[in-house]
Amino acid sequence: MQVKKVQFSTQATAFYFDAAFSTLKSVVPQKNTVLITDEHLAAAHPKIFKGWNTIVLKAGEEYKVQATVDSVIQQLIAMHADRTWTLVGIGGGVVTDITGYVASIFLRGVKFGFVPTTLLAMVDAAIGGKNGIDVGLYKNMVGTISQPQFLLYDVALLKSLPDNEWRNGFAEIIKHAAILDATMFKELLERNLDYFQRTKPALKKLVQRNAALKAKVVKEDEFEKDKRRLLNFGHTLGHAVEKQYSLMHGEAVSIGMAFAAKLSAEMLKFKGQEKLTDLIDQYGLPVAAGYDKQKVFDVLVSDKKREGEQMNFILLERIGKAVVKKIPLQEIYKMM
Amino acid sequence: MQVKKVQFSTQATAFYFDAAFSTLKSVVPQKNTVLITDEHLAAAHPKIFKGWNTIVLKAGEEYKVQATVDSVIQQLIAMHADRTWTLVGIGGGVVTDITGYVASIFLRGVKFGFVPTTLLAMVDAAIGGKNGIDVGLYKNMVGTISQPQFLLYDVALLKSLPDNEWRNGFAEIIKHAAILDATMFKELLERNLDYFQRTKPALKKLVQRNAALKAKVVKEDEFEKDKRRLLNFGHTLGHAVEKQYSLMHGEAVSIGMAFAAKLSAEMLKFKGQEKLTDLIDQYGLPVAAGYDKQKVFDVLVSDKKREGEQMNFILLERIGKAVVKKIPLQEIYKMM
Repeated sequence: MQVKKVQFSTQATAFYFDAAFSTLKSVVPQKNTVLITDEHLAAAHPKIFKGWNTIVLKAGEEYKVQATVDSVIQQLIAMHADRTWTLVGIGGGVVTDITGYVASIFLRGVKFGFVPTTLLAMVDAAIGGKNGIDVGLYKNMVGTISQPQFLLYDVALLKSLPDNEWRNGFAEIIKHAAILDATMFKELLERNLDYFQRTKPALKKLVQRNAALKAKVVKEDEFEKDKRRLLNFGHTLGHAVEKQYSLMHGEAVSIGMAFAAKLSAEMLKFKGQEKLTDLIDQYGLPVAAGYDKQKVFDVLVSDKKREGEQMNFILLERIGKAVVKKIPLQEIYKMM
Repeated sequence: MQVKKVQFSTQATAFYFDAAFSTLKSVVPQKNTVLITDEHLAAAHPKIFKGWNTIVLKAGEEYKVQATVDSVIQQLIAMHADRTWTLVGIGGGVVTDITGYVASIFLRGVKFGFVPTTLLAMVDAAIGGKNGIDVGLYKNMVGTISQPQFLLYDVALLKSLPDNEWRNGFAEIIKHAAILDATMFKELLERNLDYFQRTKPALKKLVQRNAALKAKVVKEDEFEKDKRRLLNFGHTLGHAVEKQYSLMHGEAVSIGMAFAAKLSAEMLKFKGQEKLTDLIDQYGLPVAAGYDKQKVFDVLVSDKKREGEQMNFILLERIGKAVVKKIPLQEIYKMM
């Protein structure tokens, strides 16, 4: 096991890399801790929850809503949870988003940590303190930014992960490469999904590298005034199509990245459009989709990144170098 | 008008004392601002809301619940509110609690300010960043701590305040005196409610003094690890009886202060019990109530200040000097 601490504005987060789930007992006291997970994970790993207070959520993004938050809070009250308790989210991004959100509002804030169980959560969703829920068609419309006490990484939990969930994670890994790390972009081009699924040391290294990359950006700009916005690459159009067409997050982001690459070519003479769409395709992810332009645009204008008649859009100058540009809404509509 | 800035951990709050409501236009831009108020205030002061985006809540603590938060968020989405917007709560503690809470979670946080319209909100509820909603019988079970950009004080808004609301505010003023300010305690003993209602300069001075007192304590200990806990004097038993018997907050706190004074006499040989109950009585507030002991105790153990089998209880060593003591739950039960 390797422990790396990252100090955020008001909270230090400990990253336990290359750890085993069983280590959790030495990280938090069982008595004052409640594990929050979903029904799939509870069914797949009944043993690991034994001896812990546990709250089991229905699985899936459609339950990332206020009704689930209400239910978790009712259960915490019934358990007589107080301010000394720690909530630990065991799961993918939906579980960690809900757990972090509940922890940030229950009793005006209690401690929390995560054990991400999907590749996407390990390299992205569980890191950085953003949490929240969806409201109607709008993703993450409500939430807070608050940092977990710890993240515990056990890649053995990925063993039963379905292929589409692996691809989901690679969408964010490709994103990190595209906006921040041209070297990793090259390495990804030389490998494929199958290689990382078969080669545990390479996988561990990739996970740790991406987690560190994300944590570094967040540390530099926790409240997203500046550099952190780059991580939204692919997510503006992505979010708008995701809910409307029930896409996987990684699929939606891939479509969004391809669109942002097209915009970048048009507006910044970005040369890597084809290279990026090739890499996305190489990892089994989509680069285009038929969608109702007006409907998607209507959701897009409700994006948190809109400011009046403009949208802060993340574009690429080159592979490994992203920038934020204010783009008029009608320009986006035209290019869609 | 007098402007005092107080720097909290991540936010400076501007206090506009002795201001007029009409000043609000120079504090926030009308276009990107929404005023949040309740139906009574909207009916009582139709003119002041003219020209502003407005969300009107149902009045009363029974609406300080998630359903109201949901409704405000739906209305903000419908208005296409984005991160550049400011929410301004115009009202008593319920309105400011909901406004602050919504602002701290909508789009993961937008700017907000308050115009308190009750004495209680002016001297206490609107200051310090605590916000939130009730869950079932449990007060403020869910919320955050986040500081407003500004508070605007216009005591002219108190003109139509009913007498029981005046008493409500004085409960917190008496609390401030009891825990922090023996001089103010003496001055309060020499006056009465009628005097402050008739004497505007004395009222303004009292409001500003109490607002400054509270802001100072919060600044020293924003996240309630230490000194801020003293402000909970009278609130532990108070909260437990308040919801169950639909008492005014000030009535409940008064009953709670009288109980805490009794506990203080028993445990710390506090000598001022009678003086305090006399002062509470002098301002028309209750010092005792018949209640179902077991029922109230059951709510009390769910208080945020409980830690395992003990409760952090605020007691008085003397008038003007409060301390936090861990008291076993059964001891509290015995004294109830």
